Amino acid sequence: MDLQETYQKLCRYVQDTAVLESTAALLEWDQQTCLPAGANEYRSRQITFLAGEIHRRRTDQEFGAMLQQLSGSEIVADPDSDEAAVVSNLKREYDKNVKVPESLVSALARETSAGHQTWVEARAADDYAMFSDSLARIVKLKQEYADAIGFEESRYDALLDDYEPGAKSSEVSVVLTSLRDELVPLLDAIKGSPQKNSDQILRRHYPVEAQSAFAKAASERIGYDYQRGRLDVAQHPFCTEMGPNDRRMTTRYDERFFSSAFFGTLHEAGHGIYEQGLRVDQYGLPTGKYCSLGIHESQSRLWENLVGRSRQFWIHFFPQAQEHFPESLGDISLDSFYQSINVVQPSLIRVEADEATYNLHIIIRFELERDLIEGQLAVEDLPAAWNDRYRQALGIEPPSDADGVLQDVHWSAGLFGYFSTYSLGNLYASQLFDAAESEIGELGELFKRGDFMPMKEWLNKHVHHHGQKYSSNELARRATGKDLTHDALVTDLRDKLFPLYGL
Amino acid sequence: MDLQETYQKLCRYVQDTAVLESTAALLEWDQQTCLPAGANEYRSRQITFLAGEIHRRRTDQEFGAMLQQLSGSEIVADPDSDEAAVVSNLKREYDKNVKVPESLVSALARETSAGHQTWVEARAADDYAMFSDSLARIVKLKQEYADAIGFEESRYDALLDDYEPGAKSSEVSVVLTSLRDELVPLLDAIKGSPQKNSDQILRRHYPVEAQSAFAKAASERIGYDYQRGRLDVAQHPFCTEMGPNDRRMTTRYDERFFSSAFFGTLHEAGHGIYEQGLRVDQYGLPTGKYCSLGIHESQSRLWENLVGRSRQFWIHFFPQAQEHFPESLGDISLDSFYQSINVVQPSLIRVEADEATYNLHIIIRFELERDLIEGQLAVEDLPAAWNDRYRQALGIEPPSDADGVLQDVHWSAGLFGYFSTYSLGNLYASQLFDAAESEIGELGELFKRGDFMPMKEWLNKHVHHHGQKYSSNELARRATGKDLTHDALVTDLRDKLFPLYGL
Repeated sequence: MDLQETYQKLCRYVQDTAVLESTAALLEWDQQTCLPAGANEYRSRQITFLAGEIHRRRTDQEFGAMLQQLSGSEIVADPDSDEAAVVSNLKREYDKNVKVPESLVSALARETSAGHQTWVEARAADDYAMFSDSLARIVKLKQEYADAIGFEESRYDALLDDYEPGAKSSEVSVVLTSLRDELVPLLDAIKGSPQKNSDQILRRHYPVEAQSAFAKAASERIGYDYQRGRLDVAQHPFCTEMGPNDRRMTTRYDERFFSSAFFGTLHEAGHGIYEQGLRVDQYGLPTGKYCSLGIHESQSRLWENLVGRSRQFWIHFFPQAQEHFPESLGDISLDSFYQSINVVQPSLIRVEADEATYNLHIIIRFELERDLIEGQLAVEDLPAAWNDRYRQALGIEPPSDADGVLQDVHWSAGLFGYFSTYSLGNLYASQLFDAAESEIGELGELFKRGDFMPMKEWLNKHVHHHGQKYSSNELARRATGKDLTHDALVTDLRDKLFPLYGL
Repeated sequence: MDLQETYQKLCRYVQDTAVLESTAALLEWDQQTCLPAGANEYRSRQITFLAGEIHRRRTDQEFGAMLQQLSGSEIVADPDSDEAAVVSNLKREYDKNVKVPESLVSALARETSAGHQTWVEARAADDYAMFSDSLARIVKLKQEYADAIGFEESRYDALLDDYEPGAKSSEVSVVLTSLRDELVPLLDAIKGSPQKNSDQILRRHYPVEAQSAFAKAASERIGYDYQRGRLDVAQHPFCTEMGPNDRRMTTRYDERFFSSAFFGTLHEAGHGIYEQGLRVDQYGLPTGKYCSLGIHESQSRLWENLVGRSRQFWIHFFPQAQEHFPESLGDISLDSFYQSINVVQPSLIRVEADEATYNLHIIIRFELERDLIEGQLAVEDLPAAWNDRYRQALGIEPPSDADGVLQDVHWSAGLFGYFSTYSLGNLYASQLFDAAESEIGELGELFKRGDFMPMKEWLNKHVHHHGQKYSSNELARRATGKDLTHDALVTDLRDKLFPLYGL
């Protein structure tokens, strides 16, 4: 078989695997949105069966041989070609997949499945000790996993690579540490201001029907395509995809809090717009797949925060909001509303955190999990370390582990290396926004008029269209002309928040 | 490997295939209820890919070898055992599946896919000639299919067997012909009555929300379990299953017609109650699968018509109906309502037909398709034959082919042999109802009090629990003590309708 034929065969094979992956995604979406209560057990069997088939295909020897034949061949000679991106990304993933022994895969699946259940119970009982043995076993297995895959500098790098391919712990540490060094004084300044803002306006009555209509209208306006997606209700909001033209999002409604569904939908729409902006004809191939979780999160944060919490966005949308919620917003000024959606208030819970404090929650988790994996921190010392860091960074200490070290699902599910991608997303978002603005001109002027297309199209071109052609670092460098730093994000936060707090 | 081990392996293999089948069912359910408009093309690819995998597993040689080893062995010695039912049904299906050459399977898939599209266009254009070449090719392929499978008496038997395993065209003809011979005079008597009933009451305003709440309440009351199912909206209502505890139904709402959603939901709930009554631990095996389409339809018709259109059902439910629809039913008496849901009115369209005329629509189709397959009727003569039969049986003639021979999707989809199962369902329903009543006592007395459990549990025991252990004939004989005849159905119709028409 000549190289071109092998390449075509490789693509067909991977796209057939994607048929199973996208079908598994439907099984999971349906589980979160539609599944009858009695049907959970069999759904697990369906998902497990498909996962087995997918794993078999991903570690298939003939597939590996095709990759071997193509790697370094003339077909991938141009490093900017689709072929090079397809082969190098698939090869990297294949090499990882075959390095992890079957027994370790099963042990991790078993331990995290049990670990998740234990975490649920421990959290409900507010009892870290219930969970710590399970967590210790998961940490140990993740260390073995990292060792099986191998690493250059740091064991943690091998885990980070699953979510942010090519990222190094050392580099992430540098940028997150500098970010913290800026955020702590910024937060102190806001806390020290005599001006105290409140979000009570957002806690009036917001009927679900009107919330749904308004969230749909706004997400459609910024560019999410409902011909190629949906918005449904789920307990834990997410965005998922089950085909090149099927990128669905979910949200949850709280009649007594405007923000959860509205900003949640803008956030998921940001993910959805990214997915919808990937190349349809490359579906299932690395050239048609999101670059990294950090870049994915940059898209959701950009639309949620940099666009959706801007004054200019609400110059356009506030009159519509008043029409949808005359009872709760009829007597409110744009300025009061704008102030209320940008309240800064240190709190214990990550998922409820504001834009300024959110990254501090992340940095704490990043450093703790890195230290756990590197063997610098023992599982039994984790709660004390957690509480220390909260006191230092946010000036508050959890009264209980349920609101502290037990609050997040990630570690119980074995997701070590994931947290930092949330902050990387915020950092990339600000840098991308600035780059777009210097090319397009003042974006706020467009937002005021309800024109979001130039922003979306800039992202389509500079981010979405590339798929996995470049690493996240390289993608951002090409799009923004700069390496990743904390500057753009800190400037954005200061420029927005200081005036709101009379600073 | 000893017999017991082989049997266990066989069951695991078939239940793994069922994981794929149930996953394919989710892909299809989602396509009818949720799929974004842009996602149809890829959904076809997903369904086709899974269908290929399923077909490969169903015709797998090693699977065939296991069946060969077990057939006639001591493990299936007891004909009433689960093992005998599992092996004999799987063997029968396997032998059929491997007889049909791959090329014929593809040709049929291609021709019916194109044929369906052509039918849609021909129906819209009211132009049978547009469709006839396509239909002729489909008929020819179905003849080849029947020849590949083989038959004893009649070529049509091979097609009937796909939907009603073991049924013979000659037997079905006898029972349907006698049914027609009773129905035509019964209908003439009603048409000749000076009393003219009307369903105008049902065409008042029925808000969708209230329809949905009432249909859910009623279907739950008769025994459909919403912990193991759902009710959603689809253009063409259906009931499907995607797991042992996941049997979903759909309906459609018409604000200006009470019956479509309400009786449609009772109908689908009848299918759903059957599916929910199958043995959960036998899921994926013939012992956990519906017996035949005729038996399936008997369950939907029993709940829709024999229960749902009875006076006693409405003694219980009419006050609730008035609460749900005070505007439209507040001024209506139970008697008027009962009369309106049992109006007899010969019409051209099968899916809108009443209980008395419905079977005449079916008998016409059964005879025509049998004659097409047997080569007794040419495709070009079909419209004239259709119109003749409508005039004879119902006394009306279609003014156009769109409302005549082009009205049903079945033939364009290659579903020859399917129609008669609708009438077999009605016949089985009446016979099962009578048998239940002679065991339990007068069922109407229970229905009046809203007690449907004895009926449901009788069906659970005598029908649902058996899965495919017996052929439909045998199942009904065991449950009712009789061979299938038209008597019970004709008696039911006469007993209900004659008083309503002053006869």
